[in-house]
Amino acid sequence: MNNLDLIRSLAIPSDSKIIFIVMDGLGGLPHTETGKTELETARTPNLDRLAARGICGLIDMVSPGITPGSAPGHLALFGYDPLEYNIGRGVLETTGIEFDFHKGDVAARGNFCTVDASSLITDRRAGRISTEICTELCKLLDGQKIDNVEILVSPVKEHRFVIVLRGENLRDELNDSDPQQTGVAPRPVTSKHSIAGETANIVNKFIDYAGRKLADNHPANMILLRGFSRLPDITPMSDIYLLKPAAIASYPMYRGLAKLVGMDILPTGSSIEDEFNTLRQNYDRYDYFFLHVKGTDSAGEDGDFARKVRVIEAVDEAVSALPAGDDDVIIVTGDHSTPAILKGHSWHPVPAVLYSKWCRPDQANEFSERACVGGGLGQLKATHLMTFAMAHALKLTKYGA
Amino acid sequence: MNNLDLIRSLAIPSDSKIIFIVMDGLGGLPHTETGKTELETARTPNLDRLAARGICGLIDMVSPGITPGSAPGHLALFGYDPLEYNIGRGVLETTGIEFDFHKGDVAARGNFCTVDASSLITDRRAGRISTEICTELCKLLDGQKIDNVEILVSPVKEHRFVIVLRGENLRDELNDSDPQQTGVAPRPVTSKHSIAGETANIVNKFIDYAGRKLADNHPANMILLRGFSRLPDITPMSDIYLLKPAAIASYPMYRGLAKLVGMDILPTGSSIEDEFNTLRQNYDRYDYFFLHVKGTDSAGEDGDFARKVRVIEAVDEAVSALPAGDDDVIIVTGDHSTPAILKGHSWHPVPAVLYSKWCRPDQANEFSERACVGGGLGQLKATHLMTFAMAHALKLTKYGA
Repeated sequence: MNNLDLIRSLAIPSDSKIIFIVMDGLGGLPHTETGKTELETARTPNLDRLAARGICGLIDMVSPGITPGSAPGHLALFGYDPLEYNIGRGVLETTGIEFDFHKGDVAARGNFCTVDASSLITDRRAGRISTEICTELCKLLDGQKIDNVEILVSPVKEHRFVIVLRGENLRDELNDSDPQQTGVAPRPVTSKHSIAGETANIVNKFIDYAGRKLADNHPANMILLRGFSRLPDITPMSDIYLLKPAAIASYPMYRGLAKLVGMDILPTGSSIEDEFNTLRQNYDRYDYFFLHVKGTDSAGEDGDFARKVRVIEAVDEAVSALPAGDDDVIIVTGDHSTPAILKGHSWHPVPAVLYSKWCRPDQANEFSERACVGGGLGQLKATHLMTFAMAHALKLTKYGA
Repeated sequence: MNNLDLIRSLAIPSDSKIIFIVMDGLGGLPHTETGKTELETARTPNLDRLAARGICGLIDMVSPGITPGSAPGHLALFGYDPLEYNIGRGVLETTGIEFDFHKGDVAARGNFCTVDASSLITDRRAGRISTEICTELCKLLDGQKIDNVEILVSPVKEHRFVIVLRGENLRDELNDSDPQQTGVAPRPVTSKHSIAGETANIVNKFIDYAGRKLADNHPANMILLRGFSRLPDITPMSDIYLLKPAAIASYPMYRGLAKLVGMDILPTGSSIEDEFNTLRQNYDRYDYFFLHVKGTDSAGEDGDFARKVRVIEAVDEAVSALPAGDDDVIIVTGDHSTPAILKGHSWHPVPAVLYSKWCRPDQANEFSERACVGGGLGQLKATHLMTFAMAHALKLTKYGA
């Protein structure tokens, strides 16, 4: 039995709420001068108090030593094994623009590009046309119907867009049309298995249509498609955990990911304060909250150690005014590490703290990577964090008699 | 997806090198007088420095509580799950003599034995004949061709030898001819599945031939065979990790194991100094080195606590002059524990230290079993050590977007 089936078979309702605060890219590495990580440098009296009264640990999102992308990192936090539930590139791009993705849809990422008179690619990004022009061109291509399949085209940013095929029996076992180089022609889309042959045929008809429609639109006179993918078959969180889940995230991609697992998306502002206000305002309406903070990751990616420290301190401040009730479970963690000195995602396990009145105390008295090493959660597969949240919220009955 | 498939899908090249130093049987148990293990007793300033700057942990080679043989222990260190990749006894014996084993070959371990006039076994080891005599007798039997199958016979030591069958469609689902007792006749080789019937037939013809050929060679007038096995289908390390791997090992069996996973075998001398010199001389030619030290295990097997301590100290000395560059990853560990007071392999997890400039520091400031308990690697499946080596060498891209 996989872990989700086990949880699903044991889930029971309770009055407790679960508040899951995710600081994107939280885990760090020591500053070369101080020997302290971003989290260890930040002044975090409120998070330290949670750590002292709760249990701490280090979590592996995918498996030990593997650097997670944002999608696998978040799926793991929601309890879905990212090695089992794979979100393809095309689908992920649609989550980023909050496209209303349906089951059975096939998505792909698209580029407007430039081809010469012999149909050879001269610029894979069509001179990075503006988002406005991209939006216009998408309107031009959007809504075609080919062999009973509807083809939806939506802008993303600059030369980037998504296409979504909607119809019966569509498959995603398709190779890219994007050759990833210039001086050659776009490839016809081919199927990886014969079962996808018909879908390939439809896509090629659409590419052909797009080429004709865009002919006079130099530099954006052709399209390139890649990352064809369908939605994996994801059972919503409400069915597994018997929870009513809500997401609070100022960045569209994380709202999109939350929607894939069936969360309600709460409108919010762009600041950390806005997000925590949204949590307070909706506290009575839901019993699971995913609150996503982007700033930690952005600062890490920029290599800005000090800014990452400040974002952590802002979250600490906000945590002081959480509306949590006596029976609630509060988790603070990240979806992966983004050490400022690495300027990117890393494989280092992510610090996590879980607070509930039912925690068995451990030795960790502050929220830091170092203290988490010896914490009561140990070194943990990330999918188990949601199990612990459910357990401490008294939302799981026992297994076996 | 299994771990090797995952690694293979994420591996990318980088300039860093991975130096993997294996002290055979490193893990120990406390001396009854001092309460300190062999590693804790040894003076190891250089290993302690690696531990202070790197991350430590305890590794389980097969699974918790399971005592590993040398083959599973090493396969796990190379990243191959030993429960999935099983090296049969026959194959392992051929690795010990560096036999040029081909894919599809079937190997078995052989004993020369003594039978009486009624063909009953009187001595399973033929009075432990000398290796010289064994070598002569193997020449007598070597190179037969039976039903288009070539039968190669090579001496190992004293009464022990290996046979290797080479031909088409050979199977290894065969029972031993060795009854493991005297006073009975050797058993005819039978097949475990009908698919191996033809191979059994060929082996029995060979045993018959050997019996006739050896009839006048008392005490070595018959052979016993056991441990029929084929090579498992092992993807070479170069294909999985995109590494150019080399092995430095003074003992043939470890060179053989390294060859099974596709390492180049570097000629070296018999001392620890020789082995580290070989590493220095070849440093520029490879980006993964497996350096094997046998002395720790031999001392442990002999119950010689003090000698095991001295071998560890010699390795510590050699580590001080490692040729590692700034981006390199250094790992020091063992393939299993061989506590001197147990005089044999044991199930105790094995101390490991990984040093790289990208380590997130932990509290372990010396290389010892005790310090490893609280280390940043935690208690780890051994196959993940190679994942961590790859991660710290920046040789893995991220999983998912």
